[in-house]
Amino acid sequence: MDESQSIETLVAAVSEERLWDRHMEIAKIGATGRGGVNRQALSPEDAEARLRVLDWSAARGFTAAADDIGNLFIRRAGSDPEALPVVSGSHIDSQPTGGNFDGVYGVLAALEVLDAASDADVQTKRPLEAVIWTNEEGSRFQPTTMGSTVFAGSLALETALDTVDSEGISVREALAETQARMGVAEHRAFRAPMAAYLEAHIEQGPVLEATEKTIGIVSGIQGLRWFRIEVTGEEGHAGTTPEANRKDALVAALAMVTALREFMADPDDRVRFTVGRFEVSPNSPNTVPGRVLFTIDFRHPDAEVLARLGDQVEGICRAKAGGCAVTVEETISSPPTEFDPAVRDLLRAAAARQALAHMDMVSGATHDAKYMADLTPSGMIFVPCAGGLSHNEAESATPKDLAEGTRLLAEAMLRLANR
Amino acid sequence: MDESQSIETLVAAVSEERLWDRHMEIAKIGATGRGGVNRQALSPEDAEARLRVLDWSAARGFTAAADDIGNLFIRRAGSDPEALPVVSGSHIDSQPTGGNFDGVYGVLAALEVLDAASDADVQTKRPLEAVIWTNEEGSRFQPTTMGSTVFAGSLALETALDTVDSEGISVREALAETQARMGVAEHRAFRAPMAAYLEAHIEQGPVLEATEKTIGIVSGIQGLRWFRIEVTGEEGHAGTTPEANRKDALVAALAMVTALREFMADPDDRVRFTVGRFEVSPNSPNTVPGRVLFTIDFRHPDAEVLARLGDQVEGICRAKAGGCAVTVEETISSPPTEFDPAVRDLLRAAAARQALAHMDMVSGATHDAKYMADLTPSGMIFVPCAGGLSHNEAESATPKDLAEGTRLLAEAMLRLANR
Repeated sequence: MDESQSIETLVAAVSEERLWDRHMEIAKIGATGRGGVNRQALSPEDAEARLRVLDWSAARGFTAAADDIGNLFIRRAGSDPEALPVVSGSHIDSQPTGGNFDGVYGVLAALEVLDAASDADVQTKRPLEAVIWTNEEGSRFQPTTMGSTVFAGSLALETALDTVDSEGISVREALAETQARMGVAEHRAFRAPMAAYLEAHIEQGPVLEATEKTIGIVSGIQGLRWFRIEVTGEEGHAGTTPEANRKDALVAALAMVTALREFMADPDDRVRFTVGRFEVSPNSPNTVPGRVLFTIDFRHPDAEVLARLGDQVEGICRAKAGGCAVTVEETISSPPTEFDPAVRDLLRAAAARQALAHMDMVSGATHDAKYMADLTPSGMIFVPCAGGLSHNEAESATPKDLAEGTRLLAEAMLRLANR
Repeated sequence: MDESQSIETLVAAVSEERLWDRHMEIAKIGATGRGGVNRQALSPEDAEARLRVLDWSAARGFTAAADDIGNLFIRRAGSDPEALPVVSGSHIDSQPTGGNFDGVYGVLAALEVLDAASDADVQTKRPLEAVIWTNEEGSRFQPTTMGSTVFAGSLALETALDTVDSEGISVREALAETQARMGVAEHRAFRAPMAAYLEAHIEQGPVLEATEKTIGIVSGIQGLRWFRIEVTGEEGHAGTTPEANRKDALVAALAMVTALREFMADPDDRVRFTVGRFEVSPNSPNTVPGRVLFTIDFRHPDAEVLARLGDQVEGICRAKAGGCAVTVEETISSPPTEFDPAVRDLLRAAAARQALAHMDMVSGATHDAKYMADLTPSGMIFVPCAGGLSHNEAESATPKDLAEGTRLLAEAMLRLANR
């Protein structure tokens, strides 16, 4: 077979039915009974889902390797034993009230490519790999994308292992149980070289659905800055303290958020500005609030805008503090990621060839691919999800869209694996 | 002795030292070690403080009676066994992080008047009584002013007894223990008639201190309306949900509070408008808030203003809801109380005679006297507290101011007791 024949055969071998059935199998593990799952990182359910993937892989003769943070690599060998693998995957852990597609799709799409290659008897030069990154969600153990950041070297292994959940269980303990259950003998080193990395994921936003596109070619992941603002006023009796004598931390915080929202207003609707956490103390109906803690999640795809607007946050808070004291701390600063232009070109060409309705888009959420982009040429494929809903038990995607995204992934992996 | 001699003798017998020492004795019961007390209603500490008052009373031959909600009445007999008593007092329970004067002062000032009358050998026609009202603070068991409202008949005894604290202990159980420890045999009926009621209290506001007055003659207690507003939007991913697609409950709640504050703005600074409780759900930094619950505490001395402004709260919230749903519930509505003009005249005249720097003022906070005003001619005396601070361990008042207020109380009680 020449490459174009291989591609046709491989793409035709992608099974919408098998892919969907596997999603429904994994959805049973940690099912909440309300349509979603609770399969948090390094829980027995997480291990159970990994075992299911290992079973499917072993049945096809794929090999497995794990690294020291529990990232699991499933390999279909290539013809050249020396060649670096083309890797694709995502995560299989969920939010406490998570859905059935966020993360799981990227893992099962990659595995489907490996299965389809075997079904179609397509031989690649490079190995094809499906990866499950440990703890992408960060709901049980912070931070998010723990597995990929440790793999990439931007988070120290010991720091990750020492992290504890709300019940005092450490990653070290929970990981030991997961590793024991997986029983994978082959060891993978951190930063092990790869030829390329691709990740398929549901969009987690409303754009593809609204524009009736099947595929988003992800140009990059927007930059992120988190701020933690603490406003300190003075508690007072609601009935006896005149307005003129008040140092109301809630009133000051309101003024700050209002001014920040005016400043961040964007007619192009590209700025993402969210005050998600907002806590008042003592939070009593008849006491003037003495303290407010709130957070800002500010994202933008453009590094210049991220810097220019984000740098004003502290000044605006200070200007609106009134008689209160305010501290502004930047807790996370993550620059925008741009995916490899050649990988994006390859994805765009393949989507065009397959006649898939596609568009370029920026990812609003962070993904494991962000950290792979530092190591190897990387890219992402988005498929639609109903109403843009995710991190929600009602998360929904269609078998057809999931399969279309997998066909695109298959072509891209094959092209990269023969280079 | 004629009345003016009696008054001179009684006022001279008020002991600043004894009054202060008793405050310091009571301050030890439930002391937090940070200058304040935790002596919540019907706790062992509350009972202990009552026992101390009973000891002091018994040593002077005063008698005690208790009613079915635990209100405790200490009586110094008058010459006419048929005459109704002149009653004064307040409460001895505290906030969880309370101070040493809120409530306690009113009890100890009244007891000091009884002691001074005995020291001065002043015989009154009517009995003089000091009362401890049960559970004024309402921090352990809601509502506030429980003892006085049950006594006055505006709260059913059974409802009060069935109230439970956060650990599931009922007023019924806690009260039984307190009553057993007090061991007061004489029973007092609810709504037992009295000739008059006076209450001394720290101001809990900054006005007396700022205007260098020793005494506030309280004209009344301002009216109060409480509202509970619930805003429901839609949770969304902070990174992926465009502003145009958001139903951000926090943003809507901010707009409501901002508009309400503009509407309530009062150049005379008589409106008391407080948003004290404000809770965001899910309260996660990277999730658009789906729900906000907040409360409004709105007070004004003028019933017409209370009605006119308060009636707009719901409409303003609805107008600012944006794409969110909103429910507005009025949870408390309490009209302004005006104290008896003759009692206020008597207090004003006595303050002038004693050359005490005094002023008329409205009480911002609610007090047990509010409910006595429905039963009998009533009045209140305020003394300064440092910085207007109360419900705070740093609450502070001077021995001299406490004694001046008690001297005024003594004269007023004596005049009323000989009528």
